[in-house]
Amino acid sequence: MTTDQLLCEAKAAKAAAAALSTEKKNELLCAMADSLVRHEKDILLANDQDVEAAKATISSVMIDRLRLTKERIASMADGLRAVAALKDPVGDVLSQITRPNGLVIRKVRVPMGVVAIIYESRPNVTADAAALALKSGNVCVLRGGKEAIHSNTAIVEALREALREKGVPETFINLVQDTTRASATQLMEARGMVDLLIPRGGAGLIRACVENAKVPCIETGTGICHVYVDKAADLDKAVRIVYNAKTSRPSVCNAEEVCLVHREIAPVFLPRLKEALDEKQVELRLCPEASTIIPGTPAGEKDFDTEFLDYILAIKVVGDVTEAIAHIAAHSTGHSEAIVTEDKSAAALFCAQVDSAAVYVNASTRFTDGGEFGLGCEMGISTQKLGARGPMGLCELTSYKYIIEGDGQIR
Amino acid sequence: MTTDQLLCEAKAAKAAAAALSTEKKNELLCAMADSLVRHEKDILLANDQDVEAAKATISSVMIDRLRLTKERIASMADGLRAVAALKDPVGDVLSQITRPNGLVIRKVRVPMGVVAIIYESRPNVTADAAALALKSGNVCVLRGGKEAIHSNTAIVEALREALREKGVPETFINLVQDTTRASATQLMEARGMVDLLIPRGGAGLIRACVENAKVPCIETGTGICHVYVDKAADLDKAVRIVYNAKTSRPSVCNAEEVCLVHREIAPVFLPRLKEALDEKQVELRLCPEASTIIPGTPAGEKDFDTEFLDYILAIKVVGDVTEAIAHIAAHSTGHSEAIVTEDKSAAALFCAQVDSAAVYVNASTRFTDGGEFGLGCEMGISTQKLGARGPMGLCELTSYKYIIEGDGQIR
Repeated sequence: MTTDQLLCEAKAAKAAAAALSTEKKNELLCAMADSLVRHEKDILLANDQDVEAAKATISSVMIDRLRLTKERIASMADGLRAVAALKDPVGDVLSQITRPNGLVIRKVRVPMGVVAIIYESRPNVTADAAALALKSGNVCVLRGGKEAIHSNTAIVEALREALREKGVPETFINLVQDTTRASATQLMEARGMVDLLIPRGGAGLIRACVENAKVPCIETGTGICHVYVDKAADLDKAVRIVYNAKTSRPSVCNAEEVCLVHREIAPVFLPRLKEALDEKQVELRLCPEASTIIPGTPAGEKDFDTEFLDYILAIKVVGDVTEAIAHIAAHSTGHSEAIVTEDKSAAALFCAQVDSAAVYVNASTRFTDGGEFGLGCEMGISTQKLGARGPMGLCELTSYKYIIEGDGQIR
Repeated sequence: MTTDQLLCEAKAAKAAAAALSTEKKNELLCAMADSLVRHEKDILLANDQDVEAAKATISSVMIDRLRLTKERIASMADGLRAVAALKDPVGDVLSQITRPNGLVIRKVRVPMGVVAIIYESRPNVTADAAALALKSGNVCVLRGGKEAIHSNTAIVEALREALREKGVPETFINLVQDTTRASATQLMEARGMVDLLIPRGGAGLIRACVENAKVPCIETGTGICHVYVDKAADLDKAVRIVYNAKTSRPSVCNAEEVCLVHREIAPVFLPRLKEALDEKQVELRLCPEASTIIPGTPAGEKDFDTEFLDYILAIKVVGDVTEAIAHIAAHSTGHSEAIVTEDKSAAALFCAQVDSAAVYVNASTRFTDGGEFGLGCEMGISTQKLGARGPMGLCELTSYKYIIEGDGQIR
């Protein structure tokens, strides 16, 4: 099937998906979970094909992301069941007013419609994204990476089998077979067909979508996250937070990339921080002033504008919280930033002026996550301000409409 | 000043604008209103220049939109004072939870940041947009049409004088001096500088922005609005609603362009409708079946996909509410649609399945308006589903951020 045909089928399924009751959606999600487990062998076989083909071209880290196991399939199925347990946001009345002329205006939460997701090699995204889209009443168009096409096809076939068995259109879930750049471009330009485009993956993919999309698009995921250690910081907390934000999982977008340190405490704090980070052999890229205090690599021009996603931390000494805020304004991607301080007024200033999706006081940036925020799930983390911002759960995959009831009112 | 410099100044003013108290913003708005009135002569002189220059090139309708009078300036000033009276949305806590680990997560409403508005000839938009942006804590970048550049310059100078007198940065309000296509393109591509782009004007401008913008953009205003007259309609109400939706102000986006009529009542309803519309000499473009009932122009291929903005109405006979919904799905711009019926189940189906910003039962589409919806103002009407949908008031010019307070939590 061409991508054009697939988009037409997806659009045609919108109304039926939007009309599903919560009970039916939950029934479908559980059936989808069962079907994944039932088709475990088919999925593993397809995945073997992908892994074999990829071995020649991609790194072992990427192979690990691509590989499915019995356990990973079980965990995908559990993920589907967990989405069934989440509250359905569709139909919520967000506000209701009666106007002096008697019109009753209700603002009602509705699905977006067709949500397209462009992603890279991890095949579990296929099941996750399909589940979140379905629970929020959306039709999804999934466009995964070429390395995972056999796995994704097998997963989607299992999910669609469940839909067919339950008597609903299998076109609620659609997988784009063309994994060339052409199909990604087509989704970006599908005005009138795609209501929301979500890129999930590396910075290059996200930039391409944001810059080229003619459909509404949410910028996700790139995180140059900062932790600012204030002069009034509790240094034990500060070491613990920076260590955690940098080393607990360096490859994710909410990991810290830059540490800003107040000049007054730098001589005491930096040696303690270095001692902790040495445990994980974190490479330090230091501003000139930090270099006079601890050993490390001199920071290059780009080191304060790089998402390392690795055991590397850029460190800069600043004069005060205002300088820290200004540095963040100039270098952050607007994802997550933290201040460590016991000074309430410094914390308040930082929270008010840092223009990022998540601003922390005395906690690790690693908490920016749908699960940690109590959303129960996550479709990605938005770093833009239009539409969703921060972790995107089910509500963030919806829109609203106004339903106005009258009795012949004219204007 | 180049547009680049102007954007840098705008970005630099963001934090100060976001930090303004409600009281201060209201004081500024009133001072801006006073300053407009005080500078009435300068503004009228500048407007004369624009009107003289434009006479050679634009129509008398456009000249009327461009022309300012003492009364229109007074009304602009009243508009500013009215915005001062509106509730300030900034700082609202949208939700707050305490997680099991003790983190307190607050979702707080914040300004978008820098809002750019590209608009056409009406100079009153300059004051309106500046007021709404300021009240919602945003810095605005205004890019009006070349016909109005002297008027806009005089208006912005008066507004900025008030800001200077009150001791805040005049760069809260910025007017792009370059009115060529180059500056519009620059705003569309100003990633990292413009947080939200709103085009206000004709369909060509809006399409250009939506298709070319690399910054978040809201599609506004194009309205191919439908009224469906069901077989269970009260025909008096139906005639009144269609007459109002079509003729009360045909040039606006919430005016009706297409009337869908149930086959069973068409022979009775269409002659009555024609009689009413003849009063305003509305031209009817008829589907073949309607043509057998009343006289009119045969509808051409494009007549069901055209925003006439004129005394023209396309009419199509349909078999039932489902066919009406399907026609709307295929031809609507997602702005406003109405059903006229006394049948509650037909109304419910229409409301559930029509995917437009505003869906009416027994009322005119002309009510889709910020004022009529109780928002107190309007920056435009969004026809997209990401971010704002429908009339955009102050809340729709804001985003949110998460502020997370901890006591050393790590993950």
